[in-house]
Amino acid sequence: MILDPKTDLSFTRTLAAPRQLLWECWTTPAHIKHFFVPRPHSVSSCEIDLRVGGRFNTTFNVEGNEMQNLGVYLEVIEGEKLVFTDAYSEGWKPAADPFMTAILEFADDGAGGTRYTATARHRSAEAKEQHEQMGFFDGWGTVATQLEDYAKSLVR
Amino acid sequence: MILDPKTDLSFTRTLAAPRQLLWECWTTPAHIKHFFVPRPHSVSSCEIDLRVGGRFNTTFNVEGNEMQNLGVYLEVIEGEKLVFTDAYSEGWKPAADPFMTAILEFADDGAGGTRYTATARHRSAEAKEQHEQMGFFDGWGTVATQLEDYAKSLVR
Repeated sequence: MILDPKTDLSFTRTLAAPRQLLWECWTTPAHIKHFFVPRPHSVSSCEIDLRVGGRFNTTFNVEGNEMQNLGVYLEVIEGEKLVFTDAYSEGWKPAADPFMTAILEFADDGAGGTRYTATARHRSAEAKEQHEQMGFFDGWGTVATQLEDYAKSLVR
Repeated sequence: MILDPKTDLSFTRTLAAPRQLLWECWTTPAHIKHFFVPRPHSVSSCEIDLRVGGRFNTTFNVEGNEMQNLGVYLEVIEGEKLVFTDAYSEGWKPAADPFMTAILEFADDGAGGTRYTATARHRSAEAKEQHEQMGFFDGWGTVATQLEDYAKSLVR
């Protein structure tokens, strides 16, 4: 994948948990709730139909307000790559004003951990800048740390 | 799939050609050129990478002007269902202003022919109305007739 610095945001980190476990965390509603939004925000509901075109719907609780997010999976490569977006809801219904497409990549780091790459692709430079100003790196970085901590707690 | 009459356009026709042959016509560049745009317009190039996220890029010749269309496949169910869109180009790069998502469904009609359903889903009622006024039913209907005639010519 060739990134476009004008419209894409991406980072890679090494997480101290095995690839397969991180995959399970990202694809299981009961796990998602433990890391998917930076605390003190929380996930109040999560529905997953883990297949191409299947739903990935979540509700966030942000300071007492419920925010509903409808999305679908675009690509599901077990243990390696997960792509989802708010550009569609189930049945390939296009969203009026989609924000982004998320691409998560998982690779063994050769030492029991995972090279974790998170990418957000946007429709325009303006949307990318808006996301960056909303705190993409801080927010998604926090989510990565929460994911790592949660995954480690599962193997203790 | 539940259609939304405000944003979706769809028709079903029976075509006198077997399902598998229509599928091959829709997924092979050399065949696409024979039916994909209403004549006298023509397809001057076609690139297909037939997998989820793979490219479906075409160039149309419309009255001497070349129109390039970049797209990807969203869902590929061999012989049954083909979904593609201009909302992405290869690598899940979002398009700035996508127009539609096309869903083609193929089913045996029990008499050697095919029940062919073509659906275009749009982001807004305005886009759907624009597409209808551009001649969706006439244009896509002509494409279905051209497809049927071309497929029949292959089995003669």
